[in-house]
Amino acid sequence: MLNDIITSQNIVRYNGHDFVEEEDDIAVESALTIIVDGTEFATMVCTPSEMQELVVGFLASEGVIRTYHDIKSLQIDEDRGFAYVDLINKHSIQKEFHSKRFIGSCCGKGRQFYFHNDVKTAKTVTTKLAVTPEQCRRLMKKMQESSSHFQQTGGFHNAALCTKDGIVVSRTDIGRHNALDKLFGYCIIHRIPLKDKIIVFSGRISSEVLLKAAKIGVGIILSKSAPTNLALSIAEELGITTVGFIRGNGFNVYTHQERIQGIGQLPSIIGLED
Amino acid sequence: MLNDIITSQNIVRYNGHDFVEEEDDIAVESALTIIVDGTEFATMVCTPSEMQELVVGFLASEGVIRTYHDIKSLQIDEDRGFAYVDLINKHSIQKEFHSKRFIGSCCGKGRQFYFHNDVKTAKTVTTKLAVTPEQCRRLMKKMQESSSHFQQTGGFHNAALCTKDGIVVSRTDIGRHNALDKLFGYCIIHRIPLKDKIIVFSGRISSEVLLKAAKIGVGIILSKSAPTNLALSIAEELGITTVGFIRGNGFNVYTHQERIQGIGQLPSIIGLED
Repeated sequence: MLNDIITSQNIVRYNGHDFVEEEDDIAVESALTIIVDGTEFATMVCTPSEMQELVVGFLASEGVIRTYHDIKSLQIDEDRGFAYVDLINKHSIQKEFHSKRFIGSCCGKGRQFYFHNDVKTAKTVTTKLAVTPEQCRRLMKKMQESSSHFQQTGGFHNAALCTKDGIVVSRTDIGRHNALDKLFGYCIIHRIPLKDKIIVFSGRISSEVLLKAAKIGVGIILSKSAPTNLALSIAEELGITTVGFIRGNGFNVYTHQERIQGIGQLPSIIGLED
Repeated sequence: MLNDIITSQNIVRYNGHDFVEEEDDIAVESALTIIVDGTEFATMVCTPSEMQELVVGFLASEGVIRTYHDIKSLQIDEDRGFAYVDLINKHSIQKEFHSKRFIGSCCGKGRQFYFHNDVKTAKTVTTKLAVTPEQCRRLMKKMQESSSHFQQTGGFHNAALCTKDGIVVSRTDIGRHNALDKLFGYCIIHRIPLKDKIIVFSGRISSEVLLKAAKIGVGIILSKSAPTNLALSIAEELGITTVGFIRGNGFNVYTHQERIQGIGQLPSIIGLED
């Protein structure tokens, strides 16, 4: 299997007894430098697929653009690993703030947001969407089935935008954030309504992953893996339901459990939201 | 189990039939902003342990310092998440170059290094250290045994500095790079000789991970997981042996197999180095 994201290479395999020379599939990793209005904005390493979505999603996530119409032109030089972006409004980049630490001045709440651009772009989610436990498990299963064995073992992260009933679009990348930025770019380019959408993710839910979900604008994130406490405190504040460790038949619900159908009917946890 | 890196939180667990309220262990994630000579240098999120090592390793990895003696003072405000560093030589930061794309001008080789600071800090490794297959497997097993079940399932990455015979020091972090930066900081602070050392790592070997190993200065990196093609091409160039997918009794050798004892005696792969 050879394509944009996988290459073939000779390796030596040790099988427990002998060394054997074999050809093996290896994940492709490329550097991509984004030039905005003639100025170097960022360099990332990524899986070289859906580069346009990646650039659009990254710029939206960084607060440089809000809609696809903020971009006058976007050209990608895949061979050299450069993306050239010209914006409609050249004054919209306040680069000095992008990676600056944000220190909140009221009520101690500011600690949860640590970058200025996150304060600007991550909004509270108010969707009334709710899912059943069976839908949570089925969506995770569908995402795993949609990615090949290599994508699961070869070090890729998979992120899927879903409705309650199935996958709308699925993206893969060696970088967790890139997989989500590709989804974000897809949503912006195609103006996808997000109130009925869910993100299903192969990786851990760190604060950065949670913030990406908030920026994309979904109310529910489902993961195979674990969240961090900072991610959960941001999720609580932004109104996002986080579900983790979806493995076998079970899972954990960490925040905003009102979107998981069935929880509210249990006497034991009445008042949990207080 | 509660300490610096793990906290306890009420969650709702779905066991396949019922929802049950439980207390669960959650990985702690903190923001850390590094101020160098009064100027904000970088903000990262990390597991708040061994913060001094993390700051020293990060600054060395970025090429800001070379030895521990380049630091005049280092103070960490753990509660607020700030590290204040004063350097002996205030002119050693050329911040404009740190995250700038590096474009090589000769022979197409420059593509493999994509940041200026990597060109400056990642050196070719020439150690004659060699390990047996059994040592590879045993070191991976030791690293996994040394990290708790929670550290393996809860989304931490583990990195250990080893000799052929066992673990010298092991570090953990929610961020892959941070775990390696903590090791790097430990090596710099304690002036650990590196010619006989090996890094054993729980995560994938991306180009950034490989470059960290090169900057630390080890000749062998062992991983449970997969490498990328960019990591392998940098490893080939810098003389680093990469071993991946160490699972069960087997593993894959990707680059500089001369450091794995036994390979060279196989007739089938004579000439593989040509």
